[in-house]
Amino acid sequence: MAETFTVVPEALHNRLVEAAYQKRGYTAEESAAGARFCASASTHGIRTHNAIKALHLDHLFGSGGGGCVPGAEIRRLPSRFGASQVWDANRKLGQPVAYEAIETCIGLADRHGIGQVSVDNAFHYLWGGGYVIEAARRGYIAYTNCTAALAEVVPFGGRFATLGTNPHSWGFPTTEAVGFPVVVDWATSVVAMGRVQQLKRENKPLPPNAAVDAEGLATTDPAKAVALLPFGAHKGYGLSLVNELVAAFIGGSLPTLRSRWADDGEKHTPCFYFQVIHPEALSGGAFARSRNQAENVRSVIQDILGHGNEACLLPGQVEAEAARRTAEAGGLLFTAVEMDAFDELARECGEAPWDRTGLKTKSY
Amino acid sequence: MAETFTVVPEALHNRLVEAAYQKRGYTAEESAAGARFCASASTHGIRTHNAIKALHLDHLFGSGGGGCVPGAEIRRLPSRFGASQVWDANRKLGQPVAYEAIETCIGLADRHGIGQVSVDNAFHYLWGGGYVIEAARRGYIAYTNCTAALAEVVPFGGRFATLGTNPHSWGFPTTEAVGFPVVVDWATSVVAMGRVQQLKRENKPLPPNAAVDAEGLATTDPAKAVALLPFGAHKGYGLSLVNELVAAFIGGSLPTLRSRWADDGEKHTPCFYFQVIHPEALSGGAFARSRNQAENVRSVIQDILGHGNEACLLPGQVEAEAARRTAEAGGLLFTAVEMDAFDELARECGEAPWDRTGLKTKSY
Repeated sequence: MAETFTVVPEALHNRLVEAAYQKRGYTAEESAAGARFCASASTHGIRTHNAIKALHLDHLFGSGGGGCVPGAEIRRLPSRFGASQVWDANRKLGQPVAYEAIETCIGLADRHGIGQVSVDNAFHYLWGGGYVIEAARRGYIAYTNCTAALAEVVPFGGRFATLGTNPHSWGFPTTEAVGFPVVVDWATSVVAMGRVQQLKRENKPLPPNAAVDAEGLATTDPAKAVALLPFGAHKGYGLSLVNELVAAFIGGSLPTLRSRWADDGEKHTPCFYFQVIHPEALSGGAFARSRNQAENVRSVIQDILGHGNEACLLPGQVEAEAARRTAEAGGLLFTAVEMDAFDELARECGEAPWDRTGLKTKSY
Repeated sequence: MAETFTVVPEALHNRLVEAAYQKRGYTAEESAAGARFCASASTHGIRTHNAIKALHLDHLFGSGGGGCVPGAEIRRLPSRFGASQVWDANRKLGQPVAYEAIETCIGLADRHGIGQVSVDNAFHYLWGGGYVIEAARRGYIAYTNCTAALAEVVPFGGRFATLGTNPHSWGFPTTEAVGFPVVVDWATSVVAMGRVQQLKRENKPLPPNAAVDAEGLATTDPAKAVALLPFGAHKGYGLSLVNELVAAFIGGSLPTLRSRWADDGEKHTPCFYFQVIHPEALSGGAFARSRNQAENVRSVIQDILGHGNEACLLPGQVEAEAARRTAEAGGLLFTAVEMDAFDELARECGEAPWDRTGLKTKSY
C-alpha cells in the first residue's frame, strides 16, 4: 500500500530544527550542525535518526539528561604525531564534533594519505554512516566507530551485557564508479534494543541468537529478552571489542558504567574514532585494461554483482535510492505522523507550525 | 584423550623449512621469512598454516603454480603522501612482503601516529593474524586485510561465488593489560572451503547459512555445497566487500578471475593492505582513577569479562595459550603425522630427517 509523504523543503526543516536546538541552549553553530545532520538522515531514509528522534534522544540523554553540554568547546590536545589528532570534546553535541573530525581527517589525508582523529568525552553522534557518506561523496575513504551509550550486548559465551551495540561505518568514494558511495554501516548486535521493544509490542518473535533472557540463555521471546547478542557469534563479538579497546586506548572508562552518571571516579562518556584515507594514497596506478581507478572499482563491482548476482544490493544503495527520491521530490519526505510531531516541536519552540497548504505531497 | 607431540626446537625446524624454500628457488631472505612465519603459526597453534601446509600451498599455487615468483623484488612506488606507501610486490612470496610492510607501517606510525602500506600484485600471506600479533606484541595497534586467492563466497542475496573469503585481522597491544595481544582475526565466510570438504569426508552437516548449492540455495549438505556464504548476512557481505574495494583502489582486478592465470588483459593477483597505529597517537591521557593507558585497557577488559562473563574468551587467548605451552615445552609441538610429513619434506630437500631420539615428547 502506498504511503503519503509531505515534501518539506530542507531550508524550512532546518530552520525549525535549529530553533529547537537553540531553545535547548545550543549555539548557532551546534544547532546548524544538528539540523544538517537530521536533514542528511531524512534525505537518506534513516528515519531512526530524523530530527524528531534526534531531539527526543537529546532530551532523554543529551542536554536534558546530562550527557551533553550545550556550548561546550572542543579542546585539541597537543600531539607529536602529524597525521593524528586527539580531542577532548567536553561532552559537546556529537554531530558538530563528528562533522569537524571528519573534516580534519580529510585535511590530514590530503597531506599524509591517511589521518585519524580520536575523541574523548564524546556524546552520541547518532548515525556514523552520515559522516562517512559525506566524506565518500567528496572522494575519500572514511571510517568511524564509537562506543555506544549503554552496555546492552553480551560478549560471546557470556550472560551479562557489558558491551555497547558499538557500530562501525565505512564509506567508499564510488560515486563515479556506481553512482553513489558504498557505505558499510551497522551495529555489532544482531538487532537494536528498539527493535526488541517493537517486536514485543507487535507480539512477534525475535530472530534466533539475537538476544538472551535473564539467565543468559538465547531467547526469541522479546518479552523475555534482557540483553542483545553480537552478530556472527565470536566474529561480531570481536568487532564490538574493537570499539571498546580503541575507546580504552583513547580514554574511555568501564562500559557498564557508561552514561550512568555518578561521582565514582570513573568516566561515563563514549569515545569516537575517525579515519580518512586519500584514495590516491592507496593506488598503485596499474589497473588492468588501462582503466583508471574509478573504472577499475566499477569493473570489480560489476564482477561481484554479475554472474547471477544481479539482484544483490550494494551497502549504501538503499540510502542512495532514498537520496535520489528526496532530490526528485525537491525536499525531505515525512509521514503524517512525523508531520504532526514537527507541529508539536514548533509549538514547544514557540514557532509557527509549517503551513502544510503550501507543501506538496508524494505517494510511494 | 591426550595426544602426544614431539617438541622440535625452533632453530631445527627453521633450518629444514628454509632449506625447503631455498630448494624451490627462494632467496635466503625469503626462505628465512617463510620459516619465521611457519614457526610463528606453529607457536600459536595455527595448524592450518604450519610449514607442511604453507609449503603445500606454495607447491600448488605459489612457486609451483605460477602465483609466486621466487626472488622477486618489491618495487616501492613514489608517493606524495608521507604516512602512506604503495608497493608492487611483483608476486614475491607473501610472508617476507607482509613482515616488511608491517615493519614499514610501524616506522610510519612512529613518525605520524598512523601509517599504511598498500601492496599490489601480492601472493597469499597465509595468516594475517601472524603479522598483527607481532606488531601488537611490540606495542602497536595493527590491522591488515587482503583479497583471498579465489572467489568462493556468494554476496548476500546472490547465488554465484564472486567474493573471496577476505579476512580481516586486528591486533591490539594488550600484553601489559592482560598478558597477551588481543587479536581479532577471521575470514568473512562462515566457514572455509577446507571445512566443507572435511565435513563431507566425515559425513557431517554444515552449520546453517554457511554454504549454497548449485542453485544458489542455502544447504547444510557439504556434498551439495558449491560456494560459501558470508557470516552475519549483509554485515559479513559488507566486510568482504571492504577488502574487494580496497584492493580495487590499489590495483586489483576482477575477483572471479583472481589466481586464474590467463593472457586476458586482466590482473590475477590479490592485494594486501596494512595499517599500524601508535597507541600514544590515540591517547587523550585522561584515564579515570589515575590509571595509565595499559591499566585503563585492563580495567575495561575486566569489566567486559566480569559480571558473570568470566568464562568468555578474548580473541587471541587460544593462540596465547598455545604460545605459552610452546614456550614451556621449549620448542614447536608437532603430532606424529606432522613429524612424518617433515621427514618426507627432508627427503625431498635431500636433508637428513630429524633425529627423533634426541627430541622430547609432550602429551596434552
